[in-house]
Amino acid sequence: MSEVSLFEASNWQVAAVRRDLDGQILEKINNKTKPPGALGQLEDLALQLARLQQTDKLVLDNARMLVFAADHGIADEGVSIAGAEVTRQMVLNFLQGGAAINCFCRSQQIQLSVIDAGILSPVDDQALLQKRIAAGTRNLAKTPAMSIQQANQCLAYGAEVAREKIASGADVLCFGEMGIANTSSASAMLSALTDWPVSACTGKGTGIGDQVMDRKMELIQRAVDRFQDQLNSDIPLVQQVLAQLGGFEIGQIAGAMLATAEAGKAIVVDGFIVSVAALLALKIQPNIKDYLFFAHCSEEFAHKALLDLLQVKPVLNLGLRLGEGTGAALVMPVLRAAASFYNDMASFESAGVTV
Amino acid sequence: MSEVSLFEASNWQVAAVRRDLDGQILEKINNKTKPPGALGQLEDLALQLARLQQTDKLVLDNARMLVFAADHGIADEGVSIAGAEVTRQMVLNFLQGGAAINCFCRSQQIQLSVIDAGILSPVDDQALLQKRIAAGTRNLAKTPAMSIQQANQCLAYGAEVAREKIASGADVLCFGEMGIANTSSASAMLSALTDWPVSACTGKGTGIGDQVMDRKMELIQRAVDRFQDQLNSDIPLVQQVLAQLGGFEIGQIAGAMLATAEAGKAIVVDGFIVSVAALLALKIQPNIKDYLFFAHCSEEFAHKALLDLLQVKPVLNLGLRLGEGTGAALVMPVLRAAASFYNDMASFESAGVTV
Repeated sequence: MSEVSLFEASNWQVAAVRRDLDGQILEKINNKTKPPGALGQLEDLALQLARLQQTDKLVLDNARMLVFAADHGIADEGVSIAGAEVTRQMVLNFLQGGAAINCFCRSQQIQLSVIDAGILSPVDDQALLQKRIAAGTRNLAKTPAMSIQQANQCLAYGAEVAREKIASGADVLCFGEMGIANTSSASAMLSALTDWPVSACTGKGTGIGDQVMDRKMELIQRAVDRFQDQLNSDIPLVQQVLAQLGGFEIGQIAGAMLATAEAGKAIVVDGFIVSVAALLALKIQPNIKDYLFFAHCSEEFAHKALLDLLQVKPVLNLGLRLGEGTGAALVMPVLRAAASFYNDMASFESAGVTV
Repeated sequence: MSEVSLFEASNWQVAAVRRDLDGQILEKINNKTKPPGALGQLEDLALQLARLQQTDKLVLDNARMLVFAADHGIADEGVSIAGAEVTRQMVLNFLQGGAAINCFCRSQQIQLSVIDAGILSPVDDQALLQKRIAAGTRNLAKTPAMSIQQANQCLAYGAEVAREKIASGADVLCFGEMGIANTSSASAMLSALTDWPVSACTGKGTGIGDQVMDRKMELIQRAVDRFQDQLNSDIPLVQQVLAQLGGFEIGQIAGAMLATAEAGKAIVVDGFIVSVAALLALKIQPNIKDYLFFAHCSEEFAHKALLDLLQVKPVLNLGLRLGEGTGAALVMPVLRAAASFYNDMASFESAGVTV
C-alpha cells in the first residue's frame, strides 16, 4: 500500500488527558455545599469534563449530534425485522424532523447533522452531509464488506465531519447511527476485536425471533471465520476488521471520534453500535479513552459486556434499543447538570455552611 | 378529636387514573417510527403521562420544584454528619441560588420554591414560603415528634402549597426536602409503616461512620417501640406514625402529593425521604399511585427495598444521596423527552416508513 494507513496510532495526535490538576478539581468538587460524594456519578462526570477542559468554567452549550447512516449487504439475508430500504426512509425521516432523535435533539438543544456514509441510493438534500463510500457494503457473510482503501476512507471522511463541526464551535460531539442490519456488522467486529465467541457478541437487534437469531449467528460466524483465515500481517489488524466486517457508518464514527479527541473535545457514545466504533477507535489510539462519555447501556445483548470490558459505567439504563443517538441525546442534560454544579454551586465558605 | 382527620382517605378526592384509553395510547406509541418497545422505559413513562393527562399532546412545560425544609429534635443525638444549624444555612443557600438544586432547576427550567415547614429559627425572606408548624420536631427517640394535631396540620399546609402552585399553572410538581437528621425520621416511619425491622430501614444518610450508625439504629428502635406501645385505636394509624416518628417536611410533602393527585397532576418523587412521604400518602389514599413518578434510586440503604415494595422502577441510578429534590430535577428532561416523542414523533404512515 502506498497510502498512509489511518489505522496507525501515529496518525492521530490525541494527547493523553492531563491528570496533574486532579487535586485542584477534586478540592473544588469537595468544597461544594453537599456531603462528599453525595452527587454520585455526577461528580465523576464533572471530574472527567474538568480534566478535558482544564478550566474553572465547564462549557457544554454547543452540543452537536452526528448521525451516520449506511447500508449493509448482509441485510439481504433477512437478519433484521426491517428491509434495507428502511435506512433511506429513516434518513428522510431525520431530515423531515420526525424521528425520535429529532425530538430529543430539539428538547435538549442539540444541533443534529445527518451523514450519508453510504446508503443504498443517494438522497438529494442539502441538509444531508455527503460522505458516501459506496451504495452499501457488500454482504459480509460472503465476502469482505469493503476494501482496505474504503476502510481508510471511512476514517478520513469521519474525521472531516468532526473537524468541520469543531471548527464551527462544537463543545461536545454526540454520536448516533442508522443502518438496517448494522448490529450484525457490529457483533462481527466485536468478536474479531475481542476474540469473544460470536454467541457472546450477538443479540436480537431491533427484535428478531429465535430462528432468525440462529441464522444471524451462523452468518456472523462465517464472516469472523473468513476474517481469521484471510489475516494479512502487512495491514493493521483493525483495518482488516473494518474492511472484512464493518459498516461505513461504524468506520466513519471511529474516525470522527479520533478527530474529536485530537481537538480535545468530549465525545458522547450512544449504544451498542457506537460503542463498537469506540472500541475500534480505542484499538487505534488508546489515548481517546478519557474523552469518551458512555451515555447508556442498551438492551442489545453484548453491550453490557463491552462496557464492562472497557471498565466504564454508563450513565443511563433506560432499556433503549433504538440507536440514532437517542441515548446520547438523553444523557446531555445529565452532563450539563454536572457542569452546572461544578460551575455554579456555592462552596461551604461562600455560602456560610458549617459542615 | 373534634377536628377532621386528613388521614382518612375520604378527605382526598383522588380519582383512580382511567385506563380505558390505554388501547389508543399504546397504538399511538407503537405506530411511532421505531421498533416496538425500542424506547424502553420512555414508553412506559409516556403511557403513564398520557393516562394522567388524557390528551394527544402531553404538557410538562411548567414544572415546579417544592423543597420542604424542617428541623428534627433527634439531630441533638448527633445522628448526622452535620449539626441542626445546617438546615437553616442550607435554606439560606437555596434562597441565594447556590445549592445543587438551584443549579439543576436553572439548567432544567424548573421553578423552585422553598418552604419552611418548621426549621429551628425562622428566616425573614419573602421568597421563603412560611408554613412553620414549630421550631423543629421534638426528639423522636424520647417522645412523640409532634402532636396529633400538628400531624394533621402538616397535611393541610402541604396541600395548601401544592394547590397554590397548581392554581398558578403548574403541570407537574417535583418534591425535595432538607432537614438535618431526617433520614432517622424517615427510617423510623418506614419501619412503622411496613413492619420491617429497623435494621432493614436504616442507612448512613449523608455518610456517618459505623459507630454513629449503631447509635442511630438504637435510637430509631426506641422510637418505633414507643410507637407500638402507645398505639391508639381511635386515631388513624398513619397519623400516629407521622406524629410519633415524623418530620414536618415529610408530612407536608405527603399532603402536597395528595393535593397534586386531586388536581390530576403528575408528581415527581425524589429520593429516600420523599419516597417515605409518598408511602405515607399512599397509605392514606392508594389512588395516588398512578400519579407518582419515581425519579431515581438513591444510595440510601433502604430506598431500593422501598421502591421494590411499591413495585416501581426508578428512572435514574446515579448514586445520588443528597436530597433537595436533585434526582427529581434530573429526571425532568427524561420525562420531557418521553412527552416529546409521544407528541412529535412521526408515525410509520406519516413518514412513509415500511416496517
